[in-house]
Amino acid sequence: MSSNNNLDKRPHIVIVGAGFGGMAAAKELVNKAVDITLIDRSNYHLFQPLLYQVATAELSASEIAVPIRHIFEKAENLDVFMESVVSINADSQIVNAANGQQIHYDYLILATGAKHSYFGKNEWAQVAPGLKSIEDAYLIRNRILTAFENAEITTDPDIRQAYLTFVIVGGGPTGVELAGALAELAKKSLKRDFKHISPESSRIILVDAGVRLLAAFHEHLSQEAQKDLQEMGVEVFLNSKVAQIDANSVQIGDQTISSKTVIWAAGVEASPAGKWLGVETDRSGHISVNENLEVPGFNNIFAIGDTASFLPKDAERPLPGIASVAKQQGHFVGKFILAKVLGKRKLPVFRYLDLGSMATIGRNNAVVDLKGFRFSGIIGWLLWCSAHIYFLIGFRNRLLVASSWFWNYLSSQRSIRLILGATNIFDRNK
Amino acid sequence: MSSNNNLDKRPHIVIVGAGFGGMAAAKELVNKAVDITLIDRSNYHLFQPLLYQVATAELSASEIAVPIRHIFEKAENLDVFMESVVSINADSQIVNAANGQQIHYDYLILATGAKHSYFGKNEWAQVAPGLKSIEDAYLIRNRILTAFENAEITTDPDIRQAYLTFVIVGGGPTGVELAGALAELAKKSLKRDFKHISPESSRIILVDAGVRLLAAFHEHLSQEAQKDLQEMGVEVFLNSKVAQIDANSVQIGDQTISSKTVIWAAGVEASPAGKWLGVETDRSGHISVNENLEVPGFNNIFAIGDTASFLPKDAERPLPGIASVAKQQGHFVGKFILAKVLGKRKLPVFRYLDLGSMATIGRNNAVVDLKGFRFSGIIGWLLWCSAHIYFLIGFRNRLLVASSWFWNYLSSQRSIRLILGATNIFDRNK
Repeated sequence: MSSNNNLDKRPHIVIVGAGFGGMAAAKELVNKAVDITLIDRSNYHLFQPLLYQVATAELSASEIAVPIRHIFEKAENLDVFMESVVSINADSQIVNAANGQQIHYDYLILATGAKHSYFGKNEWAQVAPGLKSIEDAYLIRNRILTAFENAEITTDPDIRQAYLTFVIVGGGPTGVELAGALAELAKKSLKRDFKHISPESSRIILVDAGVRLLAAFHEHLSQEAQKDLQEMGVEVFLNSKVAQIDANSVQIGDQTISSKTVIWAAGVEASPAGKWLGVETDRSGHISVNENLEVPGFNNIFAIGDTASFLPKDAERPLPGIASVAKQQGHFVGKFILAKVLGKRKLPVFRYLDLGSMATIGRNNAVVDLKGFRFSGIIGWLLWCSAHIYFLIGFRNRLLVASSWFWNYLSSQRSIRLILGATNIFDRNK
Repeated sequence: MSSNNNLDKRPHIVIVGAGFGGMAAAKELVNKAVDITLIDRSNYHLFQPLLYQVATAELSASEIAVPIRHIFEKAENLDVFMESVVSINADSQIVNAANGQQIHYDYLILATGAKHSYFGKNEWAQVAPGLKSIEDAYLIRNRILTAFENAEITTDPDIRQAYLTFVIVGGGPTGVELAGALAELAKKSLKRDFKHISPESSRIILVDAGVRLLAAFHEHLSQEAQKDLQEMGVEVFLNSKVAQIDANSVQIGDQTISSKTVIWAAGVEASPAGKWLGVETDRSGHISVNENLEVPGFNNIFAIGDTASFLPKDAERPLPGIASVAKQQGHFVGKFILAKVLGKRKLPVFRYLDLGSMATIGRNNAVVDLKGFRFSGIIGWLLWCSAHIYFLIGFRNRLLVASSWFWNYLSSQRSIRLILGATNIFDRNK
């Protein structure tokens, strides 16, 4: 599938990863004078910013994921290859897939994303899952909903309280959004569902090691978010380090909290793309790229999004691991490669345009930071909704998500609260 | 949770299973002078007749499943208990749950449904999954979609053909509906998705041991269904017994067909409720119930739906295992118990009202048999759509399913075609 039978040899561009970065790069290259192979483990592109709503029973996975083949059905020069990548041979310009196939590239774009980092405590992964994939979201949804079912069944008041205590580790946007959504689930949507427990009495604890929530936002918005969460009944623990997590409790400083459900939103590390190439990375595995987003030592390999670390001129710290960085980098690399292929003499350099940041805190409320313009409350929420609908791919998904939100807004219902059972259902028949 | 603290001792009715039968019984008893415990392994009621559309990427699971607690949120006398049942002690009137809890009953309704039966060839379960649960539907959807991905990747023409060959065993409504939906998926929805294969060239083979499809329908409709499926490119093998199934092939009579994807729609057997009680059952595990749907030897235990076998007066064979039988039996038992509780002297006997049967064959086409009135084609399809929307529980689901169908009708798209990965995601945090 990597071979190119055209008489004019067109450059073959391999993109690994169909997240925001990889998709943006592919879109620039589609139906141009190149051949593209887009490799991903999954057959869909996932709109990760709304994943926490799948985890909290508000949206269905299919509302925020679109089959990659569908997105590119009109692309004549793009091959989709559903497989994992296991290694790269940069000398012979070959990507090795898990099924043994070798894909030759002229240009390689690494957009392989990040996974959770437990800062060396990998045993916590089992008891405190993170939220990166649809499977993660289903797992977390199952755990949250089952906790209420188990609380309803048990006759032991201590165990009941442990089932009704939810700890979210990490006060960035994911942690804040999860805490807000979980507070609403417990205190509104599930209110009338149980006979023996009051879901309203659930404890939802948001823990962060720093001095404030949403450290990347303006301080004013951090305070706003904290106040709003507290009004919704979320307990916010700042300056608090998690010392230990097991299946029944979390130790925060010298306090031990009984909890059956801990969710990890604290840290990520880059995919092993740096290791595949044998290049230097930072502690979290990011490859430091140059102003063209090239991997040091290679002028035909690019790293973007969460795979890369890019320090803008005169900036104190690298760009954050957010969707808009990945998208802008993807578009840049697509254009950059085209310029090279076309033999243009003047090549662009990457400049990031900061579009701001936003996080929602339950219904009717979001904090939005648009380069000096700051919004919160209902105006923030409407901005947040509009932006997310706008950036979703596909008319159908936009319509469905907007309808689901409208429905939830009117009814406070969470309709997706299915607990799915059985293991090994996701066997791929290979 | 089974204890009853009212001063007036109200009879406690335990319903095992929240399928069509159990739900109907519960609805009759809600907010009456009884206490109800409804036990199910899952936290949702599933609208099984549309499950094949989840398996063929047309609907999302949450569109056809509703949380049981949500359905009964206004019921003051109903406890939902999410657990499996492992045994029954009829002497002390106790149901034993998997978590060790014992639930005492005054009346017990067994509505535990059925599972696939491989007629003693249980090793086929792994290679030829059946379609009873959401998990089954996800597994089958994954296998179907992954087969196309693998066909696209492989360079071996024989392996490619095996990936593009789908065998459905069993020509009842489920098999017919699956075959039609799969033919549309392959020949329409996926048509433009691949570069190296033509999904239209897929073989879809529907195998049945009998002389015609849809044996429970009028012969005219069986022929209609067969003709329509064949026009859609489905190969119908009648009088054909499956002799062997493995991961790479199916042996039908003395013909061996290479196929990587086999789906089982051939037979079911009842849940082990008969064994729990130590009563006699037929070969498929059904308990023969009397005219009050009582289990022989017990005047406070009822079996309904797929758990029971009921032979109407003057009938040649027992009622079929379909939703309308289960629902009517559920309503009957609910009313019957109420009549007993109220001390009515004249108790009803169960009579089944045959409402007919229907099966859809792709878009625009269904066969419908309404007691002498028979419809096919677009009229049949509109009847089929209306009936299914009508019987779905919940306004939201009706709206969503109707919208999805309308969308699919306009676009031929299957939007839910996500292949989900990873095992053990459905861990329930117990």
